[in-house]
Amino acid sequence: MAQDLCKLSVTEVVKLTRSGKLKVEDYAKALIARVEERDATVHAWAYFNPTLILDSARKLDAVPAEKRGPLHGVAVGVKDVIYTKDMPTQQYSPIYKDDHPELDATVVLALRSMGALIFGKTHTTEFATCQKGPPTCNPHDPTRTAGGSSSGSGAAVGDFQVPLALGTQTGGSTIRPASYNGVYALKPTWNAISREGLKMYSITCDTVGLYTRSIDDLELICELFNLVDDTPPPSVPLNLSGARFGFVKTHVWPKAEPSLIKLWEEAKAYLTQAGAVVEEVELPEVFGKLGVWHRNILHMEGFSSFLGDYLQSPELLDPWVTKHAVNEGKTTRKEQLEALDEIARLRPVIDEIASRYTCLITPSVTGEAPFLEEPLRFTGDASFNLMWTVLHLPVLNVPGFKGRNGMPIGLSLVGPRYHEQALLRTAHAVAEVFAQGRWKL
Amino acid sequence: MAQDLCKLSVTEVVKLTRSGKLKVEDYAKALIARVEERDATVHAWAYFNPTLILDSARKLDAVPAEKRGPLHGVAVGVKDVIYTKDMPTQQYSPIYKDDHPELDATVVLALRSMGALIFGKTHTTEFATCQKGPPTCNPHDPTRTAGGSSSGSGAAVGDFQVPLALGTQTGGSTIRPASYNGVYALKPTWNAISREGLKMYSITCDTVGLYTRSIDDLELICELFNLVDDTPPPSVPLNLSGARFGFVKTHVWPKAEPSLIKLWEEAKAYLTQAGAVVEEVELPEVFGKLGVWHRNILHMEGFSSFLGDYLQSPELLDPWVTKHAVNEGKTTRKEQLEALDEIARLRPVIDEIASRYTCLITPSVTGEAPFLEEPLRFTGDASFNLMWTVLHLPVLNVPGFKGRNGMPIGLSLVGPRYHEQALLRTAHAVAEVFAQGRWKL
Repeated sequence: MAQDLCKLSVTEVVKLTRSGKLKVEDYAKALIARVEERDATVHAWAYFNPTLILDSARKLDAVPAEKRGPLHGVAVGVKDVIYTKDMPTQQYSPIYKDDHPELDATVVLALRSMGALIFGKTHTTEFATCQKGPPTCNPHDPTRTAGGSSSGSGAAVGDFQVPLALGTQTGGSTIRPASYNGVYALKPTWNAISREGLKMYSITCDTVGLYTRSIDDLELICELFNLVDDTPPPSVPLNLSGARFGFVKTHVWPKAEPSLIKLWEEAKAYLTQAGAVVEEVELPEVFGKLGVWHRNILHMEGFSSFLGDYLQSPELLDPWVTKHAVNEGKTTRKEQLEALDEIARLRPVIDEIASRYTCLITPSVTGEAPFLEEPLRFTGDASFNLMWTVLHLPVLNVPGFKGRNGMPIGLSLVGPRYHEQALLRTAHAVAEVFAQGRWKL
Repeated sequence: MAQDLCKLSVTEVVKLTRSGKLKVEDYAKALIARVEERDATVHAWAYFNPTLILDSARKLDAVPAEKRGPLHGVAVGVKDVIYTKDMPTQQYSPIYKDDHPELDATVVLALRSMGALIFGKTHTTEFATCQKGPPTCNPHDPTRTAGGSSSGSGAAVGDFQVPLALGTQTGGSTIRPASYNGVYALKPTWNAISREGLKMYSITCDTVGLYTRSIDDLELICELFNLVDDTPPPSVPLNLSGARFGFVKTHVWPKAEPSLIKLWEEAKAYLTQAGAVVEEVELPEVFGKLGVWHRNILHMEGFSSFLGDYLQSPELLDPWVTKHAVNEGKTTRKEQLEALDEIARLRPVIDEIASRYTCLITPSVTGEAPFLEEPLRFTGDASFNLMWTVLHLPVLNVPGFKGRNGMPIGLSLVGPRYHEQALLRTAHAVAEVFAQGRWKL
């Protein structure tokens, strides 16, 4: 029974808790037991306080049925760069050890107002930047990374410790862990969900991300956060026969590992067999510059973001952060502005390209989760994610494939900005087909 | 003596405190006396705690001379939508009355690390939005507004209560109060100073602003915050003979009041007499759309920013905020994206136009500070400011002129993005000439 409770999706939990069939306290106890059983292996949590969780759960149980919110009792893991009023926010930085500013990020305040149970803080790399990983391990093979920087959020959802978790993405920090942990994740259109109350790295790129184990759950959250398309898609399921998919290898395809190369062809074959039209899309040459532009933006926006921390405690910063704070690469303002302006010019271009297809499909990762190697505990390569982040398009990781070593690999579905609902509708049909890839949580 | 201390500029204070000629405690006492004398008239402060100020001052005095920061002992007023670790942040919202997240915004953390004395929290409109003003009055005529939303910051600097204050600007919230209070203010290039730790309204527009009574002070702060041009301007003063100014009436010129129309001609005459070339610049027709685009961006970005507050306490929100939180105007995502993309396209265009001149000159306000009328306490018209904010250009209010009723009116100097240093150098020369306009603090 307790095991079953851990496997519930967000939509299933809500059905039970709102109607009173399941007490939030009992649900919370099941999740706590799961965490206690698994934490020594997975290390998903930077802050986990069963007493506080149970206290919050009992308060939710005391809310009369007619006043229960649309996410009543749903346990949410919150990446530890996102402020929470009742828990510390430590940013995986020695500067902020045990720091507790008693503030809810807008996304947390909204979730709380919807009745969610803020369950704990999940591990991140320092300030959601840096190459050095936190203690988190991949639940499907603890010798491998869970990805990063939203390491704990991806692992906790993939390991049935919570059904919903918040991440952030500046490069590939939401989508990469989703692929490595074999779960769904949505990086919505930039700022569609407010980023207020997240540690800032790059104002142009930082985006709140969502982890779940079901597409229905993402649909529910999108609706609650007003992520509604101007013209919502039809409510009947998408018929793949007649759908048209643009497969985008991108300019970083040379980084693809054998597992990715293999599933890329399989994915196309599965969709074709299901009646869809599939074509490879070659993006205009200018898109090849997005990697450098993304880096210039991150470095110059990090230059202002990390100034305070650098002045206060230079000796406590990871060298990767310091590099930004002192503009070590001597990026010029001209280079920064060129990057900002040229990328802005490409956003409507890629929207238009994406709108020619049911959706675009592109790699989420270069391959399976790499092995953890001390002392860096590198969280993997974000090359395939950067461009979509800086272009502000919604990206959805759909799991489904198994790599050579039995680890999960997903593919990213991408739509034009503010077309989350259409993308999620497409994902239902695509996920069914991708299930032939043999990955199952 | 105490009066004299209140009149010191940032650069003057630093010279005295760093060398030990002036104890920070004595300086703080003089400012506290000034506030206590004036606060019943001006109402600049949302939080003012002399015990805390003196305690901080004494700690600064205990810092050995060789460890004193570049802003040692400089008293800073902080707009009450910016988080401060040691003071409440109340946002002029009943929701956040006495709220005290123990967190420093990045700009505050940086100032504190530089040795600044965080002096108190200055009044703002609710969440730095809304038409309804806080209790603040104009120090030069308490029957008039000090402007908004950075009402207290503009008033406190204009009234010699602090030499430096932080504001924010989403429409005209920094520049307008500067003009009404007769002080300098810089709205730097967007995100050049990190906006982390400010209540968010519009991520595309919100910008940290700075108030001082001297250009030297702004130059110092810019340098300390890495606001350094790619090619810094010559260190010798600008010679106006040979300088070329583009006077931009903008598409909202019909809002100009008689006082503005008069000084507009005077400003041109003064500069011409000083040997400068002056011409009126007519912006391309498309710039006329910036007002509507700015509004669409604010409404849709406010739609995500205010979701949490709206869900938590709808009954405690000002109707102006609620309007955003529910997207009352039914702005579409298409309209939002058009605004974002078209404005992004215009940024390099206006940079190029601005780079043809020593700088652009444009109105800061429609006229003198309007009379305060209960219950709205309207803080004045921001029409002339919006476009520069959303275009991300640095804007500097230079006071100098007196309106028909003896109240101050400034003009805005505008340069291309990330050319703060060149703009400030120009301001020195322009301010000398504008002094003929007879406004003197």
